[in-house]
Amino acid sequence: MLSLPLVGCASLQASARDEAALATEAPPARKPQWGIVIHGGAGVIRRDMLSPEKEAAYRAKLTESLQAGHAVLARGGSSLDAVGAALRILEDSPLFNAGKGAVFNHDGQNELDAAIMDGRTLRAGAVAGLHHVKNPIDLARKVMENSAHVMMVGDGAEAFAREQGIELVPAEYFRTEERWEQLQKALEKEKASPGKPSSLQPSRDPATGEEKFGTVGAVALDQAGNLAAGTSTGGMTNKRYGRVGDSPIIGAGTYANAHCAVSGTGHGEFFIRYTVARDICARMEYQQLPLQESANAMVMDVLVKAGGEGGVIAMDAQGNVAMPFNSPGMYRGYMGEDGTPHVAIFQE
Amino acid sequence: MLSLPLVGCASLQASARDEAALATEAPPARKPQWGIVIHGGAGVIRRDMLSPEKEAAYRAKLTESLQAGHAVLARGGSSLDAVGAALRILEDSPLFNAGKGAVFNHDGQNELDAAIMDGRTLRAGAVAGLHHVKNPIDLARKVMENSAHVMMVGDGAEAFAREQGIELVPAEYFRTEERWEQLQKALEKEKASPGKPSSLQPSRDPATGEEKFGTVGAVALDQAGNLAAGTSTGGMTNKRYGRVGDSPIIGAGTYANAHCAVSGTGHGEFFIRYTVARDICARMEYQQLPLQESANAMVMDVLVKAGGEGGVIAMDAQGNVAMPFNSPGMYRGYMGEDGTPHVAIFQE
Repeated sequence: MLSLPLVGCASLQASARDEAALATEAPPARKPQWGIVIHGGAGVIRRDMLSPEKEAAYRAKLTESLQAGHAVLARGGSSLDAVGAALRILEDSPLFNAGKGAVFNHDGQNELDAAIMDGRTLRAGAVAGLHHVKNPIDLARKVMENSAHVMMVGDGAEAFAREQGIELVPAEYFRTEERWEQLQKALEKEKASPGKPSSLQPSRDPATGEEKFGTVGAVALDQAGNLAAGTSTGGMTNKRYGRVGDSPIIGAGTYANAHCAVSGTGHGEFFIRYTVARDICARMEYQQLPLQESANAMVMDVLVKAGGEGGVIAMDAQGNVAMPFNSPGMYRGYMGEDGTPHVAIFQE
Repeated sequence: MLSLPLVGCASLQASARDEAALATEAPPARKPQWGIVIHGGAGVIRRDMLSPEKEAAYRAKLTESLQAGHAVLARGGSSLDAVGAALRILEDSPLFNAGKGAVFNHDGQNELDAAIMDGRTLRAGAVAGLHHVKNPIDLARKVMENSAHVMMVGDGAEAFAREQGIELVPAEYFRTEERWEQLQKALEKEKASPGKPSSLQPSRDPATGEEKFGTVGAVALDQAGNLAAGTSTGGMTNKRYGRVGDSPIIGAGTYANAHCAVSGTGHGEFFIRYTVARDICARMEYQQLPLQESANAMVMDVLVKAGGEGGVIAMDAQGNVAMPFNSPGMYRGYMGEDGTPHVAIFQE
């Protein structure tokens, strides 16, 4: 398992100045490099909080996800298919807050959101408030391809899932004891300080103290030069009132066009208000900023000033990669044409 | 009642060249002009479809809405309050597809969405899938101000409404016979051509043949120089699967920042994919386009090429107004400091 310094953490890495310089140079006139980038959530993730075993498990799962996406791209598959393949692995793993292992809402339910977007056509599909869809990213794809809608929520979205033959599971499938404990802690904390408006917090691992926004996401550039982005999440522990975060909001947590593809993770409300994913691409289009600069401006400047914790993964049409985050850590990785996995967790 | 040619329909009005020229000039260095702009939906609205009585009723209600918003601004109230006051009038009127008189979804329910955004702070509130909230725009405001969330949907959103003391009404309150007939026609049409994926259509008045996307929206600039935008809708007749359109999606159908405020109406799926409201403001910010040019680029070029029918209302921080639409008609109006109502329906 490699843990090379990763392009995209430039502003956080004293040790990665060369990579950062490389990434912010004008893109050389070369054939676009296809590849895939993923994230598994950002937040207070510090080396002292993660046991070597758990760290190894995360790295292994991120690598498996990269390999699944890469395999699709290597055989000439589409970036949409690669994003789906990579995200299914992360949704199926209890390590991440999406699909199995999603956090619990205030009512003790797992409530799932996802979105996918095709950079070539600007078609998009988004779903929110799911309780029974094993792989929300697959349903988002069906919404995009087999309906006249972009976004479906709640029971209606699950009715569509049934019609489309999407795999449904009992609500218990998503449950993990760790997430259940996180909710209990959040509820206790809320009881201890009532009067506060509906508490919203990143999911906190009671064993390690790790606090993270555990969304998963993927962006990819395929051999035909088409970009795609996808995001899947369980939202925030103890969320209420049918809260929808940024992941299924096109332009907020998920966006792709001909210029770039972005998936975000963090305090979703800020990502919605600042239309983070769209803005990174808009600055490239309208201000001719390079990807790295555009992503950094949003994550390391605009979001930091607003108090919005989180990060993004992004790719442009040349295959440049950016992964800035303003939190202590972000589970992340990329794999280019050469098939070498680059996986990282901390500011390294 | 006046029916002056309206700034913002420039590209559609041979007779309004002077106003168009005025609107696209570089803004003069003058004190910003406060005011309010509203829409009541865009679509196939033609003079031969609307009886003089019905046209008069629409004009009267649009004028009443403008006056309500203007009254707030005139006494030094905020653009947020003005947007709310103007939209409540339109929500309460059965003439428009929002609040009372909303269209029916496939299951014979009225299902309401709304959003509001504060250009000064970029705070926002959005709600979707409501069945009992009399004025969805008021609930969106409560979400913005009294919760940690931006977006709430379905039963959760209505639970929050109860906690906030928002007026709830029986589902029958929203029902009008005209809308019910529209659904029956849509269902018959769908039966006649099965096999087609979930049919989505603008609401069609069986008496007149009028087909429109009947969202309502308002944008305002107050005396303190702050912009706000709000949108409220019943969505599309015969919508299914918990479909959420662009109105409650920040950046799609509703957006405001320090530069401009936008509310859209039209085929919502296109507004989401093209992040229409955000993009109009982004082009102003990042390309230094004047409001009119930016709004026209989106509505009369990008959306037309994509096949996305509809229009927007927009204001900038100088009080310039744009109201481009690419459909035959759009219910619309604006009222500046002088309190004169400017109301229009067709390409006039």
